[in-house]
Amino acid sequence: MTNDAAPVLSDRAEGIATITLNRPKSLNALSEDMLAALQATLDEIAKDRETRAVILRGAGDHFCAGHNLKEMTARRADEDGGKAYFNALFATCSKMMLSIVNLPQPVIAEVQGIATAAGCQLVATCDLAVAADTARFATSGVNIGLFCSTPMVALSRNLPRKQAMEMLLLGEFQSAQRAAEMGLINQVVSQAELAAAARAMAAKIVSKAPVAVKIGKQAFYEQADMALTEAYAYAGAAMAENMLAHDTERGIEAFIAKKPMPEWLDD
Amino acid sequence: MTNDAAPVLSDRAEGIATITLNRPKSLNALSEDMLAALQATLDEIAKDRETRAVILRGAGDHFCAGHNLKEMTARRADEDGGKAYFNALFATCSKMMLSIVNLPQPVIAEVQGIATAAGCQLVATCDLAVAADTARFATSGVNIGLFCSTPMVALSRNLPRKQAMEMLLLGEFQSAQRAAEMGLINQVVSQAELAAAARAMAAKIVSKAPVAVKIGKQAFYEQADMALTEAYAYAGAAMAENMLAHDTERGIEAFIAKKPMPEWLDD
Amino acid sequence: MTNDAAPVLSDRAEGIATITLNRPKSLNALSEDMLAALQATLDEIAKDRETRAVILRGAGDHFCAGHNLKEMTARRADEDGGKAYFNALFATCSKMMLSIVNLPQPVIAEVQGIATAAGCQLVATCDLAVAADTARFATSGVNIGLFCSTPMVALSRNLPRKQAMEMLLLGEFQSAQRAAEMGLINQVVSQAELAAAARAMAAKIVSKAPVAVKIGKQAFYEQADMALTEAYAYAGAAMAENMLAHDTERGIEAFIAKKPMPEWLDD
Repeated sequence: MTNDAAPVLSDRAEGIATITLNRPKSLNALSEDMLAALQATLDEIAKDRETRAVILRGAGDHFCAGHNLKEMTARRADEDGGKAYFNALFATCSKMMLSIVNLPQPVIAEVQGIATAAGCQLVATCDLAVAADTARFATSGVNIGLFCSTPMVALSRNLPRKQAMEMLLLGEFQSAQRAAEMGLINQVVSQAELAAAARAMAAKIVSKAPVAVKIGKQAFYEQADMALTEAYAYAGAAMAENMLAHDTERGIEAFIAKKPMPEWLDD
Repeated sequence: MTNDAAPVLSDRAEGIATITLNRPKSLNALSEDMLAALQATLDEIAKDRETRAVILRGAGDHFCAGHNLKEMTARRADEDGGKAYFNALFATCSKMMLSIVNLPQPVIAEVQGIATAAGCQLVATCDLAVAADTARFATSGVNIGLFCSTPMVALSRNLPRKQAMEMLLLGEFQSAQRAAEMGLINQVVSQAELAAAARAMAAKIVSKAPVAVKIGKQAFYEQADMALTEAYAYAGAAMAENMLAHDTERGIEAFIAKKPMPEWLDD
Repeated sequence: MTNDAAPVLSDRAEGIATITLNRPKSLNALSEDMLAALQATLDEIAKDRETRAVILRGAGDHFCAGHNLKEMTARRADEDGGKAYFNALFATCSKMMLSIVNLPQPVIAEVQGIATAAGCQLVATCDLAVAADTARFATSGVNIGLFCSTPMVALSRNLPRKQAMEMLLLGEFQSAQRAAEMGLINQVVSQAELAAAARAMAAKIVSKAPVAVKIGKQAFYEQADMALTEAYAYAGAAMAENMLAHDTERGIEAFIAKKPMPEWLDD
């Protein structure tokens, strides 16, 4: 029955797109149709200038439990034992994760329950994350013989090395509190406050000049892989470009005149 | 009136150079003359073998509020709308930041009040930082339409990724306590203790053999951009070179003989 | 007398190899014979499929106090003042450190007392670390004129930049508690519980499928030096390879059938 429902729900209000993983009975696993729907939704949002921030959440009690292991196991019957399929599946999933990184709009993970394996990777991949104190995080693949190698890429770029290794090698659940201490999430609130907290964070981003947010998010990930001198050359050019935007000119003028920020025109 | 005063004050005592940003009425903004004076001061200190550690502080109630937006806005009247000027300005500022990184002597930020935008970048760029519990940190450019792209280069190399993104996208002030938890600063003290705490930190560095500090600081940033195996080859050569210094020979001999460290000769 | 004892003890029980640095009177310093014995022990363990996890500990009250300065000082009498020897020594030491990184099995540092200079580097180099609340950590070379440049390579890949610089420039001891907060170690326990805590951590790793642990640990360090897109391509291939292992197939089948994990066959 749940399979008749769309795997991903998406709506937009006040500049905030909310993406809901919508297969609560399978803990919002990243099955093929879920991955395809999520990719399509991200591709649409990337082109939608009315969307200024994105919230990614899961329907039901949990955020996302990672890949759909039943679907994957079925492909062991393929002639090559599933090799081509598994390679394609992880490439598809990595492409989706990179689409979050490359999305012009910031993405906030809103986590109420478990976020495991590729579900934990989703949290690590989002630009920001807020969690209820009921949330729990694990890269648990190692417990069943499948190391969370792709989740590791995102996790190890968020957490200190020893703590990332601990999650990956021991596969144990981490509380929201420890996740915050390790740097995986930004904020812990009560479950009752979770949706409002994510929305408040998104609304703050919506209130900023779109050109600044767009240039900034892109520059963040571009410069992260550069050596220091190269990163400065790149970021200096990005900031000069930002200065030339009309909205930026108007914002700085308002600031100098001690007036409230103008309505942003996104130009 | 304040513009008649030198934009940067510099003095040296007991091997410690203290650089004071000296435009308290404009929150020590990094105007053109401030940047030029800071660059000149750093260039002098780089050549001064009597200086063993540097403290960077701001006159008045605050550390530094970033770029001078009025000065920048005036250049929108240029034929190209300011494009060439903005590019040159950010290049000049990045060069100054890199001069702190490349300075042979460690630099300690002493932060009493607000440190925003390029002012927050200064803190992130210094090797060490101590702050009063009254200090507040923000990369607030996003609030007026100008994302802190160059500050981001330093910030994202100090803070975990999610926390850096939070500061950059939301533009909110962070307390000294949270700044310490995120890794932006080393120590929080009361405002009454601030100057003494920075001085004590600098004095500890002055007490070390200059050759060790100089080789070590340079090697730190060089190897930071290298892959692991390359970093080890580089650091091993740096450490062998360090072993051959006369001061190092004398220090190790004193240690083996359980004697106090010798007067360092810087040779 | 202690020099008659083997510099390194090694035993294996229940899949866990315990390596003990065995020169307590010299604080388990990494003398030439200690380095050679440690390298030989690691090389053996690398080939031993019965070993699934490694504990690295020090005999006596302390973990390891770094290089043997007397041995090094003696070589100043060489024709070249020791230059060739020092270069070779640091290369030998770095090779041993990289052997821990490249070892197929995870290595857990068990730290009861001081871990200084290359001893602190050993802790930073291990995949995981547990310490007694009596443990203390320092990169103290700077205090005697020899900056901890090779320890810095490991330290700066574990700690935030400002905190790494603080340890390296000031050379002061850090408590186990602060070491945990900075990310250098995973867990602090009482001294009475230390051996059991390290063993429990190792036993958890032994309980996992060897193929997953081996692929995962290797992939972790390989992808750490890659840019994001490259890292995803690499990790996706590693995960597809992992899926094709027989143990992984059996583990996932048991998981889907809600059965306990099978006995791993390491195939």
